[in-house]
Parts: sequence; structure tokens; C-alpha cells
Amino acid sequence: MTTTAPHPLLVTGDDRRVADRFTRSALTTDGRLLPTARFESWLAERAGMNRFAVHRVPFQDLDGWRFAEDTGNLVHSSGRFFSVEGLEVATDFGRVPRWTQPIINQPEIGIVGILVKEFDGILHCLMQAKMEPGNVNTLQLSPTVQATRSNYTRVHKGSAIPYLEHFVAPRTGQVLVDALQSEQGAWFLHKRNRNMVVQTDEDIEVRDDFCWLTIGQIHELLRVDNLVNMDSRTVLSCMPFGRPDGPARTVAGDDPFRAALVESVGGQRGALHTDAEVLSWFVEAKSRYAHQRRRIPLRELEGWRAGPDAISHEDGKYFQIVGVQVEASSREVSSWTQPLVAPVGHGISAFLTRRIDGVLHVLAQARAEAGTLDVVELAPTVHCLPGNYRDVPREHRPAFLDQVLSADRSRIRYEVVQSEEGGRFYHAQNRYQIIEADDLPLAVPPDYRWVTVAQLMGLLRLSNYLNVEARSLVACLQTLW
Amino acid sequence: MTTTAPHPLLVTGDDRRVADRFTRSALTTDGRLLPTARFESWLAERAGMNRFAVHRVPFQDLDGWRFAEDTGNLVHSSGRFFSVEGLEVATDFGRVPRWTQPIINQPEIGIVGILVKEFDGILHCLMQAKMEPGNVNTLQLSPTVQATRSNYTRVHKGSAIPYLEHFVAPRTGQVLVDALQSEQGAWFLHKRNRNMVVQTDEDIEVRDDFCWLTIGQIHELLRVDNLVNMDSRTVLSCMPFGRPDGPARTVAGDDPFRAALVESVGGQRGALHTDAEVLSWFVEAKSRYAHQRRRIPLRELEGWRAGPDAISHEDGKYFQIVGVQVEASSREVSSWTQPLVAPVGHGISAFLTRRIDGVLHVLAQARAEAGTLDVVELAPTVHCLPGNYRDVPREHRPAFLDQVLSADRSRIRYEVVQSEEGGRFYHAQNRYQIIEADDLPLAVPPDYRWVTVAQLMGLLRLSNYLNVEARSLVACLQTLW
Repeated sequence: MTTTAPHPLLVTGDDRRVADRFTRSALTTDGRLLPTARFESWLAERAGMNRFAVHRVPFQDLDGWRFAEDTGNLVHSSGRFFSVEGLEVATDFGRVPRWTQPIINQPEIGIVGILVKEFDGILHCLMQAKMEPGNVNTLQLSPTVQATRSNYTRVHKGSAIPYLEHFVAPRTGQVLVDALQSEQGAWFLHKRNRNMVVQTDEDIEVRDDFCWLTIGQIHELLRVDNLVNMDSRTVLSCMPFGRPDGPARTVAGDDPFRAALVESVGGQRGALHTDAEVLSWFVEAKSRYAHQRRRIPLRELEGWRAGPDAISHEDGKYFQIVGVQVEASSREVSSWTQPLVAPVGHGISAFLTRRIDGVLHVLAQARAEAGTLDVVELAPTVHCLPGNYRDVPREHRPAFLDQVLSADRSRIRYEVVQSEEGGRFYHAQNRYQIIEADDLPLAVPPDYRWVTVAQLMGLLRLSNYLNVEARSLVACLQTLW
Repeated sequence: MTTTAPHPLLVTGDDRRVADRFTRSALTTDGRLLPTARFESWLAERAGMNRFAVHRVPFQDLDGWRFAEDTGNLVHSSGRFFSVEGLEVATDFGRVPRWTQPIINQPEIGIVGILVKEFDGILHCLMQAKMEPGNVNTLQLSPTVQATRSNYTRVHKGSAIPYLEHFVAPRTGQVLVDALQSEQGAWFLHKRNRNMVVQTDEDIEVRDDFCWLTIGQIHELLRVDNLVNMDSRTVLSCMPFGRPDGPARTVAGDDPFRAALVESVGGQRGALHTDAEVLSWFVEAKSRYAHQRRRIPLRELEGWRAGPDAISHEDGKYFQIVGVQVEASSREVSSWTQPLVAPVGHGISAFLTRRIDGVLHVLAQARAEAGTLDVVELAPTVHCLPGNYRDVPREHRPAFLDQVLSADRSRIRYEVVQSEEGGRFYHAQNRYQIIEADDLPLAVPPDYRWVTVAQLMGLLRLSNYLNVEARSLVACLQTLW
């Protein structure tokens, strides 16, 4: 039995206690179990204990993968995992009314989950040093569990996923976070993962490649390029925090940005728009656009060329489909081949922020992407591969891109290169930036809105509001208290 | 500027004031502008002022509609409005793993909106006596505006939709309700409408066929068969209410059902599951099922037969596709022809309820239907055409159907036959029931959960949680305070 607040889906006393637990862990910037100073050597040791090798291979050397005779789609002989198909997009969002592109079709819902446990009253996260074939640096810090449905129904006949039993029903722990969240809409058709945090009181054996870290420690590691992987970032972004000004740390001090951030996380003080207005803006954006998608055979793509080693766009833009061969001693299966999406160049992903009456707001965009499940999701102020716009007239470039590219160094509060999911993307990196832009107006174009961090946390509690780049940025923003 | 509560998407002071406004109107059971006693004669007068005629016609007499040569789909020559296509469903939800069926494809988002205005401090709703071709009784009470995108982009070249300017941006009123909600998943592929309530302070000219009613008056009318149309019911269901026990009316008295309902609406006392648990249950249900849909040509349906007058299932079950010719003096276009979905027999739609520690809970189902946008939506305890199960062994009939069909009369707190949308469905009626079932256990099958009315109102504030039959039942349940 529980008492609910006088109205729907508000945060109840229970929720506040959960948020306080996360906040306390985030304010604990070092850990007793694996001190941050020892993390680098621990990771190097893990890398040394395992053998990894990834090579690009031509499509004909992919084992178990083939181009289907009727469609040309790149599929696995089991009919499972994922396939690379064609997608036709007809939309009135943005400048291009129609295009075709390759897309990864993986309609199942996987689990990305962090197991947490209190040590000395502080939540610690069970994190994993994990190899993925598309990683630039082989090992990155991953959630406890990263399982496709194929994984946990044992399609690939590998060894069992450790700790998975804490995330699938019937489970013994307390579910603190549980939301369906999308992945890259530019490359995935309707792909989602169930983002979970489960707290356990049981004794947990710490297996090789795993370690316990506080959220504060992970926040420190989020300042290192290509270390905390995308799945970790998205689960972190779903953690609710209370106002981060407990006795554990005096935050903010005389930095008005940090003081405004603390207010924005706390949510007690003014937001420019009510929650109801933010939800209504989002409904309006979904109603505004006709965004139709049709799956087509891969061989019917227009402007794309299939070679022996890659499927590429004839302008050399966007991304390629490539093949890799992998050997790994630490994964469930020790060697395999697979296709990956290889973006052409690095992307940028940025939140412009401003203080409004002492409360930090970020400028969010309602954005339609090729594979977005439901017309639009809430996206960063700017997210693009700048290389795609090298020959595009200035007035046709994405809104606010110039403000991001020309931002004064002193206004950039966060700038770290992070990797996208190495299980599907080859060397996909984005420069994540959080930038002060206090001179921007309150009135913004219809697809944009100034929102507080508390409002973003509210939407993250639900499913499918923030896209994956916005979630990464929220995880990064929470490191700046 | 507004103050948000300490956390996300909770109900702020602003929201509570809006809910109190709705509650006050619901407790006002008669209206000064059109007293309920005069409503029947007003409606009869409206019927007398207009001329309506609807006839079934063979498909070949449909004007502007044709079966496309390549697919056999039933389409309009403009390429707009909607089309009747084929759908293949492959699912592990329910007992039937695969089937094909006709489905209405209308991917655009329409608006169903009620304009409200305070008279003597009480909100009144501007309602319309409106003819729809599929109505059993021609005229029903409709929202202020019921507009497809085709309507408001003027595809059919009719006269402008009255009052539409209050619902499309830029608007002058205050948006009180704004959510995307689905329509019948059994008959529509991904169809949604934007449900809106907008409050105006302007002088409003009351046009022919329109009248101002309090929510309390509409609640009275919801006790009459086939009077308050589906679009009105779904907008009403999205209205948030506070605890209905103000000075305006002493409710509940010594009826424990009503007393428990008041607590359930108020939300201050215990819910069996926290809001977070309800959301997590819903995420789990979406993750549990693989529910794949593929649009196929209408001519590739299996088990369906196309005749000159109807497309029907060979077992005589489910529904038919038929054609009608319409003449109406009060509509934007005075005569037209169109296809409609005609269900075979009447349906039932019921919430079983029980008191848990003095708080009314309803038994909701997470349910996948053919056209559901995102795997499952929250549905009534039971919703079906009983005729579909006439030859099905008892153990394969829907869960809880027997409890509904055999309920003692004294336990049925609400039982009214209501119509589904007459613009797409021909004589589609469901018996809506709210039934006391205090002997049901707290532990229910995985796809079912006991939830409070406050929790349902919370989900209704968001988009796409409750399906249309559940929303109708919520609207009916709110009449029982």
C-alpha cells in the first residue's frame, strides 16, 4: 500500500526518497570499492587480460550474413539479430521532402540495466569493462547488463548474460528506473531499449570485468573521451535527482551557471513554461508534421552504391554500411562477423543553455528523424554531422549550428567526445557540448523550447520523449553541479 | 513564469486549479443556459431543422472511391481522407499467432476539441448536435470541433469548420487539455486524435446546432443510450478532476462504492501500486510481446470475401466493410458517399472494480490490438464482441468475460449502450458497464493491474496510454460520484 500524491504521476514521497538516494551517490565523488585513482589501472588490467581483434572485411566474408535474393536486404541466416534494409521517408519536417536510405531494422526491445547496491548507505553501480566491435578504443564502461532479446533468448548460443536475472521478471530487487527509450533515429528503425536501474540487497559476486562505482565516480569518468559508453549514458540520464545541495557538498558557490543548474535540477523555482505547456508543445509538434516511412528493399535505394566492402552514398556523406570480423576472449561468443553502420566523420551534439530568473534552461528541439517511432522526439539544440553541410548554403544549415561552432571557449561548460553504441556503429563519435548562451532570446522557433532539467527528468521518467543524443547530454549536464 | 513542483510532471498549483475548475462544473448538475429539462426538445428541434438520409449502397455507387488496380485497396481518388487496406498481424499476444484483416489507414492526426467558457464562475462546454452517417440515431452530442486534417486543410472543399480557430495555433484561449489519444485498434491502423479543451474569455456566438452545457449536465446525458458521442467521451475522459467533495454537493453519503470512488478520484489515499510501479508494469508489458504488423494489399486477405455490397469474414464474425450514401443539410458538404466499418453485433466494454482499503480500483488490462501504435495500451477489464466467441471453448474466452456476463444486477453501477464514431463506423455500439467485483483477488494475471482513478487521470494527461474503450469507461465512471 502506498499513498499517492493528490494527482497523477507526480512524484510521491517514495519517488523523492529514490531521487535522494541517487543524489547522495552522485555527490560521493570517490568510491571505497574501486577508488577513482585506481580506475585507469583496473581498466588497463582488464584490457590486458582479454584478447580483442576487429578487422574490416568484405561482405562476402561475413559468416551467416547474406544479401537476400528478393530484396537485397542484408540479413542473418537465423532470421534474428537485425537486418539492414531500405527506408523511404516522406516528410514535411526539415528541408528535404523525400529520401531513401539504408536503416537497421531490429524491432525487438532489449534491456540496458544497471544493478545498484548500497555500501555504507551510498548507492554503487555495478559497471562493466566491455568490448564492442565498433569501439575506437575496444573497452568502454558499460552497464551491468546490455542484452538484446536475441541475447536473452539465447539465439547465438553463447554463455548466459551475467546478472540478467536481476532485470527480468520475477526479480527480487527494487526497480528504481524503468523506461523504454529510443536509439539513433538516423540509423535505426524504431529501435528501443528498456532502460532499468534495479537495487539489490543481496550479496553480489563481482565477476571479472565488473566493478562497483558511485554515480559521482561515473560523473568524473564522463569527462574522459570515449570512456563511458552510450548504454551507460542513457541509463544514467534516466536517474532522477533531487536538489543537489545536501550537507555532503556545497555546490555552486559563486558560479552563476552552477547555481542556476542546481535550481534547475531541484525544480522548486520557476520554469519558463509549465509542465502542461511543455507537454502541449510536444503534442503540437507531433500534430504539425506528416512524417511517413515505408520499408523498401535495400536494392531499391536511390543515390546509394553497393560495393564489395561498403554500401555508401554517392555524395560521400551520411554513413556507410560495412562488415567486420571480431575476435574477443571475454564475450559470450569468442569470434563472429557482423555488419556495422560507419558514419562519415564525427558529429556534434550540443545543448545551448541560458539562465532565466536564476534557473538554468536548455534549448530543446522537437525533431523528426528517419526512424523515429512517433514523429518527433526531444533532441539537443543542435545535432548533426557538420560534414553533411559543407556544400550547403549558410541559410540552409541547421538552426543554431553557427552559435555552437562559434561559441567562445569560456562559454563551453562541457566538451567531451563520446562514442555511440559499438555493437552497431563503427567508430561513431560525437562531440558533446553544453554551452552558455545567455544572449539567446526567450522566444524561439516553433520546434524549440526552453525547458528546465527538472522537466527533462520528468519526461525521462516516462518513455520515448528524449532521443538518445539528448539523453547523453542530460547525463553529461548532471556532472556539472 | 511559473513555479514547478519539486519534480517532473507532477501536478503543480496551476494544474490543481484547472482540475478544481472542471470539478466545480461537474458538480453543477443543471445549467442556466440550456437547462437539462429542455435539452431533449432542443435536440428534437435541431433534428427537425435538418434533413438527413443515409442509405447503404454497393461499392460501385461510391463516388470518388475505387478499388486500386494493383492492391485492391479501397481508396479515394484524391489520395486523401482514408483508405481501407489489408493488415497482417504476427503476435505472441493472445491465442491467435497470426491473422490478416481489413484496416482503415488514416495516418494523420485530427483534432477533437471542446471549447469551454465560464458563466457565473462555472465552466460550460460548447457542445454540438451533429449528424454522422454511421449513427444509429442520426444526431449525437459532439465536441465543439471534430476535424480531420483533411477537414482543416479543406480537402473536401466544404465550408469552414466553426470554432476551429480556437484550437489551432496561434490561439487566444488557455489550453486546459492537450493529448494525443488513439482510436479503435481493432479497426484503425495507428489512428490518433489530438484531444483538446481550450478555455476562452471571448464573446462566443452560439451557432445553430450548438449549446453550452456544464460538465455535470453532460454527465447526466451520459446515462442515456447513444447520445454523447465517442469524440465527446474521449475528450471528457481527459479532463482532470480534484476530489469531488466541495461545498457544492455532499457526495457519497453512506454508499461505500461512491465513497471509495471519491477517494480514488482525489488520490490522497492509498493506491495498491505506486505510480512508478504502474509505469513499470506497462513498460514490462510492452517488452513482453512481439507484435508485428505489415500492411498488405486488401486483395491478399485470407478468409475475407469481397462482394458487391460488403467485404466480410467467411465465418460471419468481426466486422464488414460497407458503403453508404449520405445527404445532410447541416454538414460542410451536403451529400457524399463513403465506406464504413460495420461491426457484426454489439460489443461489451466493462471495468470490474473493487474497493481496496476504502479506495476504488479498476482492473485494467495491457492489451495489444491489430492497429495499436505501440504494442499495448491500457484497456477495459473486458472488451469484445461476445458473438466472436459463440463457438469457442469456455477456457479460450477472454479473461473475466464470465464475471461480466454473470454479474448480479445489484453490482452493475453503470450500464449504458454507447456508439462508436459514426464518421467511420456503421451502427457500432458497445454496452459500457462498470461493475462491483469486491470478491476478486488483488493478485491478477500479468497483463492486468488494479489502478485508481487518479492514476488513470495521470496517464490520460499524457498521450497514448489508455485506449478508446477505456477512455469511454473513464468518462462514464466520472458520472458516478
